[in-house]
Amino acid sequence: MQTLNVELADRSYPIFIGTDLFRREYLAPYIKGNQVLIVSNETVAPLYLDQLKAVLPAIQVDEVILPDGEQFKTLDQLTVVYDGLLTQRHNRTTTLIALGGGVIGDMTGFAAASYQRGVNFIQIPTTLLSQVDSSVGGKTGVNHPLGKNMIGAFHQPQVVLASVDVLATLPDRELSAGLAEVIKYGLVYDAGFLDWLENNMQGLIARDNALLSHAIYRSCELKAEVVAQDEKEAGVRALLNLGHTFGHAIESCQGYGNWLHGEAVAVGTVMAADLSRRLGWINHDAYQRVVRIMQAANLPIAAPEGMTADEFMALMAVDKKVIDGQLRLILLRELGAAVVTDQFDPQALRQTLKHFTA
Amino acid sequence: MQTLNVELADRSYPIFIGTDLFRREYLAPYIKGNQVLIVSNETVAPLYLDQLKAVLPAIQVDEVILPDGEQFKTLDQLTVVYDGLLTQRHNRTTTLIALGGGVIGDMTGFAAASYQRGVNFIQIPTTLLSQVDSSVGGKTGVNHPLGKNMIGAFHQPQVVLASVDVLATLPDRELSAGLAEVIKYGLVYDAGFLDWLENNMQGLIARDNALLSHAIYRSCELKAEVVAQDEKEAGVRALLNLGHTFGHAIESCQGYGNWLHGEAVAVGTVMAADLSRRLGWINHDAYQRVVRIMQAANLPIAAPEGMTADEFMALMAVDKKVIDGQLRLILLRELGAAVVTDQFDPQALRQTLKHFTA
Repeated sequence: MQTLNVELADRSYPIFIGTDLFRREYLAPYIKGNQVLIVSNETVAPLYLDQLKAVLPAIQVDEVILPDGEQFKTLDQLTVVYDGLLTQRHNRTTTLIALGGGVIGDMTGFAAASYQRGVNFIQIPTTLLSQVDSSVGGKTGVNHPLGKNMIGAFHQPQVVLASVDVLATLPDRELSAGLAEVIKYGLVYDAGFLDWLENNMQGLIARDNALLSHAIYRSCELKAEVVAQDEKEAGVRALLNLGHTFGHAIESCQGYGNWLHGEAVAVGTVMAADLSRRLGWINHDAYQRVVRIMQAANLPIAAPEGMTADEFMALMAVDKKVIDGQLRLILLRELGAAVVTDQFDPQALRQTLKHFTA
Repeated sequence: MQTLNVELADRSYPIFIGTDLFRREYLAPYIKGNQVLIVSNETVAPLYLDQLKAVLPAIQVDEVILPDGEQFKTLDQLTVVYDGLLTQRHNRTTTLIALGGGVIGDMTGFAAASYQRGVNFIQIPTTLLSQVDSSVGGKTGVNHPLGKNMIGAFHQPQVVLASVDVLATLPDRELSAGLAEVIKYGLVYDAGFLDWLENNMQGLIARDNALLSHAIYRSCELKAEVVAQDEKEAGVRALLNLGHTFGHAIESCQGYGNWLHGEAVAVGTVMAADLSRRLGWINHDAYQRVVRIMQAANLPIAAPEGMTADEFMALMAVDKKVIDGQLRLILLRELGAAVVTDQFDPQALRQTLKHFTA
């Protein structure tokens, strides 16, 4: 078991990464009051809820089980969590535990941020994506029909348990979707890690526990460094959104839920690489490496059939990185180094959109 | 015009108090981007919306007008604000302006706290209650059918304009409701201010601008001192809730909206004083002073007809000050000094509840 400390002054917390993590000693020290509400979904609860409840201290433990899927990351479903808290009379010292993927983590985190103006929460991410992404950074929230993650808060957990064991039950598509975010860390910050991923992709796809643990640890470590510098995303943290502006447009267009977030990010990352190439910032070989590693991870590299360049433009215009009407994108200066910029030829963007929607 | 600075490190902000405050110089420096969304209600908008819009800089100005009343302080109505922001493509640099009473202030503040994980907001409180209460402290949120203010966040405004002029159009009942909170500051923190209020109640009820300005300034000053010490209400800030646990029970029982918040707080404060008297902490004369000043301010001093002691107990059990099942109340040690405590004879509480529901 490895421990990574996310350093955020009085909001610092540990991430435990490894196997056999459902143990009282990893949870009890982070539960302050004598009430817990576990939030999970219909897919994960049958697999791990009993295992979790068995190791909790002898206090009031309630549960809310939500339907599974990005299409349920809504204010309506959030209300179900509030109802559970209030019906069971949870007070300000309660602790929420998110047991599930990114949707459960984001919703539970926002419920914790907003219930009685803020209570504690613990994350037990059960997908690779949520282990390497929402584990670090405290972004919480829900979607709005007009845009993803438009309603939310920054709220840090007390502790995160990233258990590699639980990935054994993860569908192949979701494993690949998680790898898209892992690859992103290499592309944005660490060319050496990117090399390591290229060399070990077969073992990662085969779910080698040691390789997965290393990939999770290094991804969280890179993200933690960035978040420590820029908790509220005023600057460098924005680079973590490589591929996300294109990706969110894909997810919005699909009405959420048909494409996995990681799949949309994979295509978005390839699109960002393509635009970087058209601007002359990276060469064709570098672009091809991006395409190949996504393919090696069994990820899509083209936009959904039928989606048009105009749809992309309209959906990208409501992205949170738009400032005063000016679209900003994360692009690659080289493999292992990204920039956030509004300085790009709109004609090149148009060509990228046309190329990927052909 | 007087300026009170609320000192909260990087979240510090000024409150301007006085007449003729709808001026560009008091607003423009606090608007960072080039988008504004004004949130108001159907009562206030016809009176002051045009006046406000006339002094805003030449930027994108949108508006959302909500129905008027505590019963609309809900997640559903909050959604109307999010819809307005997203439909008009407001980005992270937008500024929300709350033009209205406490309900509008709390909802707009929470919309600002949660839209894209936090944007700026400005408060223009148009009731005495909101000028002396929600102006200071950054508490924002909405109600839940099972409890008031159960969903929310701490989020500080950029600036507050507390204009005494706008109180000219305030109904008498709402003026009195505001005075309940002003009296509370005297009872909890400042016996001298309580004396001043007793001596000047007639002039305050007659809406003398100078007297009102002083009452607002001193109330905000007292609250600002407390909030600076205890922003997240871990300690002394809780004393500001004198009368609120009883008062919230009254409001909940009424289904919100029939009683004004300040009216419920007035009765709650008299009940807290009665319990303090039964515990032998204050004498009968002090108790009578509390009753008399509420009467002088034209405020109620008895619970709603038909409300029972059992209803009080059930509704008070979900109060945010309940910790691990233990009810805590704000009680008076003397006039001008309060404590938060769970050390009271439950029998005395029972007697107070019976006395006021007889």
